[in-house]
Amino acid sequence: MQTTRLEHIAFLAEFCSENQVSDVVISPGSRNAPIVIAFDAHPAIRTHLIHDERSAAFYALGIAEATQKPVALTCTSGSALLNYAPAIAEAYYRRIPLLILSADRPAHLIDQGDGQTIRQQNVFANFIKMSLSYPESGDNMLEKAAIQLKKAFTALLHLPQGPVHINVPLNEPLYETTNRQSFQVEKVENHDMSSLDTVNMNDVKQIWSSATKKMLIIGQHHPDKRLEEVVKMLAEDASLAVLVENTSNVQSFPRFCHCIDRTLEIISDDELENYAPDLILSVGGAVISKRIKAYFRKFKPKHNWRIGVFQVEEDTYQSLTKSISVDPVHFIEALLEQEIAPLSNFGGMWKQKDLMANEMHKQFVESAPFSDLKVFDTLLDVIPDDAVLHMANSSVVRYCQLFNPVRGIDYRSNRGVSGIDGSASTAAGFSIVNTSKLNVLISGDTSFFYDSNGFWNKELKGNFKVFVLNNGGGGIFKIIPGPAESEQSEIFYAPTNADVQGICQAFNLNYYLSESVHDILNQIEDFFQLEENNRPSVMEINTKDVDNARVLKDYFTSLRDDL
Amino acid sequence: MQTTRLEHIAFLAEFCSENQVSDVVISPGSRNAPIVIAFDAHPAIRTHLIHDERSAAFYALGIAEATQKPVALTCTSGSALLNYAPAIAEAYYRRIPLLILSADRPAHLIDQGDGQTIRQQNVFANFIKMSLSYPESGDNMLEKAAIQLKKAFTALLHLPQGPVHINVPLNEPLYETTNRQSFQVEKVENHDMSSLDTVNMNDVKQIWSSATKKMLIIGQHHPDKRLEEVVKMLAEDASLAVLVENTSNVQSFPRFCHCIDRTLEIISDDELENYAPDLILSVGGAVISKRIKAYFRKFKPKHNWRIGVFQVEEDTYQSLTKSISVDPVHFIEALLEQEIAPLSNFGGMWKQKDLMANEMHKQFVESAPFSDLKVFDTLLDVIPDDAVLHMANSSVVRYCQLFNPVRGIDYRSNRGVSGIDGSASTAAGFSIVNTSKLNVLISGDTSFFYDSNGFWNKELKGNFKVFVLNNGGGGIFKIIPGPAESEQSEIFYAPTNADVQGICQAFNLNYYLSESVHDILNQIEDFFQLEENNRPSVMEINTKDVDNARVLKDYFTSLRDDL
Repeated sequence: MQTTRLEHIAFLAEFCSENQVSDVVISPGSRNAPIVIAFDAHPAIRTHLIHDERSAAFYALGIAEATQKPVALTCTSGSALLNYAPAIAEAYYRRIPLLILSADRPAHLIDQGDGQTIRQQNVFANFIKMSLSYPESGDNMLEKAAIQLKKAFTALLHLPQGPVHINVPLNEPLYETTNRQSFQVEKVENHDMSSLDTVNMNDVKQIWSSATKKMLIIGQHHPDKRLEEVVKMLAEDASLAVLVENTSNVQSFPRFCHCIDRTLEIISDDELENYAPDLILSVGGAVISKRIKAYFRKFKPKHNWRIGVFQVEEDTYQSLTKSISVDPVHFIEALLEQEIAPLSNFGGMWKQKDLMANEMHKQFVESAPFSDLKVFDTLLDVIPDDAVLHMANSSVVRYCQLFNPVRGIDYRSNRGVSGIDGSASTAAGFSIVNTSKLNVLISGDTSFFYDSNGFWNKELKGNFKVFVLNNGGGGIFKIIPGPAESEQSEIFYAPTNADVQGICQAFNLNYYLSESVHDILNQIEDFFQLEENNRPSVMEINTKDVDNARVLKDYFTSLRDDL
Repeated sequence: MQTTRLEHIAFLAEFCSENQVSDVVISPGSRNAPIVIAFDAHPAIRTHLIHDERSAAFYALGIAEATQKPVALTCTSGSALLNYAPAIAEAYYRRIPLLILSADRPAHLIDQGDGQTIRQQNVFANFIKMSLSYPESGDNMLEKAAIQLKKAFTALLHLPQGPVHINVPLNEPLYETTNRQSFQVEKVENHDMSSLDTVNMNDVKQIWSSATKKMLIIGQHHPDKRLEEVVKMLAEDASLAVLVENTSNVQSFPRFCHCIDRTLEIISDDELENYAPDLILSVGGAVISKRIKAYFRKFKPKHNWRIGVFQVEEDTYQSLTKSISVDPVHFIEALLEQEIAPLSNFGGMWKQKDLMANEMHKQFVESAPFSDLKVFDTLLDVIPDDAVLHMANSSVVRYCQLFNPVRGIDYRSNRGVSGIDGSASTAAGFSIVNTSKLNVLISGDTSFFYDSNGFWNKELKGNFKVFVLNNGGGGIFKIIPGPAESEQSEIFYAPTNADVQGICQAFNLNYYLSESVHDILNQIEDFFQLEENNRPSVMEINTKDVDNARVLKDYFTSLRDDL
């Protein structure tokens, strides 16, 4: 296949391909035609065509998550680029390597009244790892291009990774093609984290072994068997409480506390101080539970260590004493070098609360009426154990935190910035490269309509299954304290008044409707089958007529009542 | 109705209301709840509820255009704000006053691992007139707030106007309310443009009266009877050619040349130099015709004056000699003080070409087969004369340029940045405050699906009518030179494969389908009626099976053939 006649752009595609990029998300425009042509012509690159750039960037995020590799994305000049912003911010706070290749007009035409022309340089300044310009014209183009690309890929691949923006000014003619040629391109070295040698481990071990109330808390993390293994070993220490969330993807293990919010709920006010750790070891990205953050901010630990690639400089609990950029597995292995000689049963105390909360949870949920809560109980029970579960933001991800994680399920959610703007697109992107697995998205109705362009794609297949909890919009505002008390509650609850089936018709998705647990269970086997058209399926679950907020309130009351 | 307990936020709403803001577009979140409550409680403010912030900002743009007043918009913290970016860039390049009120976390919680928290300050730095922070807490809050608001409104209202961003950090509790109280707020003075006294008009008049080949070109402009009047008078001068586009909204007048592209097409290569002006006077915003820009850049005028509030510093034709920030009406009135004594028939020459092109146009279009071109001919003939016509970007706005503007129609299009990302939302926003008029949107299928969330709104009424030209996606790539010649043409043409009727079902819009001119004409009367449900109507016009590119090519060939 012929490639672009612009040599420095063909070179760009080759450089990407030789440096771990195998997937490129393309939003075609005229100005970026040379880039589109170069990637499309490259035999080692898979291209994915997405028209809405907001959705395209979330697709790229999902693909990068699924492949654990950097993903490039390209759009035309002007406001197209600005639509990338929400996903770039999410990638920035999750340390996901996205390479943004925006076409631009030549510099002398900016702010001169031409169409689709804005000041594109540094446009993501607040949430980008690096921004640079690709050479426009002149001598030694390939040499200059190589220098810029090396800088860009070093930033992209070096831990902690993150999004990088290369702005590419392009002159007409844009569509001319020629035979592909080969280029010598440099492979940028993969940078690893600092080694443990840089850390004073004697000091660390001494503090660790003398602490009586230790807590390991794991934030968002991709599934990692090595991490799981060492954490299990560390948890043998009875003085250590291990708190995980489903997004930690550290699989269910008897000594872990899995559901932070419901466990905290049954610790009475008198006990709170006793349950506060004197040493916190944090690993991974964002923690979903707001309560645990408030709790730690109130009862500050003496030691608070943050370890790994994620935001080690962030002081989430306002008491940070050490931040160490080393592989947490190595760090924990070093701790394991010492014999475990627990000075307390602090971990056991937490686990006991976790078990009690679990009992009460089961009792309540079993007899709970049809409601959002009951639906989550039902769904989490039927989703196949090797599925990827994508949780949309707002109320869905919070409801899921009340249930024990299911062993085998890979839990995903946009918890970097926690917007509702790209839940469907991110899951969809993940599903198109993760074809051997069932990818299940649970979404509220507001997120579903917000990002319905995530379904505007022919590439989506039958391995993508979507549950839409239609509670009539604004469910989150009914379950947080506040809105109900204001006279403006209507503006927060306002039903979105849109029809899920219409979206399914628009984008060729198979449609199911359930209005009871019975409906769900009756249809679930069919729903999870591959459909004849091999397209995604959507099950709308209607809980509009239920007082979901009441059920959730009763749930928390029941946890406390049994104290 | 009770308002927020946060006095400085209630004060903000009062300040806005007393300074020309009557409409506020609200995307509810928890963090911006106090702002939402304050505006909702204010008796002089109309609130509009839009969940998708990208769409919300384009709604605000449409409302500001329709009301010719500043519009405020508010969203919650995090990526929500980033979704405003495309519309803010459009507002910036069109000098439209939007006041962005983003809720934020308190400063000490930024980059600490909390949800929906990013660095929001200066996030629109590349395309905002002013960015500032609202006071967070402490003494003299109202005093500090008043100072910030005065700065913001001075920037917002002073010509040239533009978007202004106030970032508002908010602490919990967010939903508490209290009785409304009254505040004394300052009314920011309305700033006018410079007066003519600052311009050396003797010099100007002398150059004007001695120029033999003068051209007035009017870019995008809202309808302005005063401007129309003085331009008509100036056009009495036979040495002056007046070039307007439909977006100039200077109504059809015999001496004006209305369709730049088709007129330029029939000027032969030999004649081009003769038709080049020695003096260009530019008024208004962006000019749509790419050809005229290329033409002027090639044949540079001796004098090139840019007059008015729009981008007077922009040198679109790369020959700017004067940029004068005065009201163009005053400027033209001053020119009219001299007797008109034309030194040439330059204006007549241009008009002759315009008439010839119009004749050939009519001949071709009359007998043209069913195609996009023929559809535009049909639609522009049947749209009522007092309608507002919203042209989506990409091919629609370009096709419309080939037809004489219809007297009485108000032509609108997002020509600041010319993105396809908000055409539906902008038109929708215009329609909800311009209820006495029919608001007609013509859109391609790609723009329609891209911005389908523009229809996700209960407030839309039967005065909003939408034509979707469904040519199967990527129509623009078939009519510009280039893509067809590359082997990658498929990636540019790729059909979007989505169903217009599905979107109509999703958002409760009445649906019509036409597959011929006959179908259109048969249904048009019903279509323009108010439907029983008083909801918008969409007519899908299917031209997928037509070689639209061929027809357009033949059209331009026919213009040249008759030379």
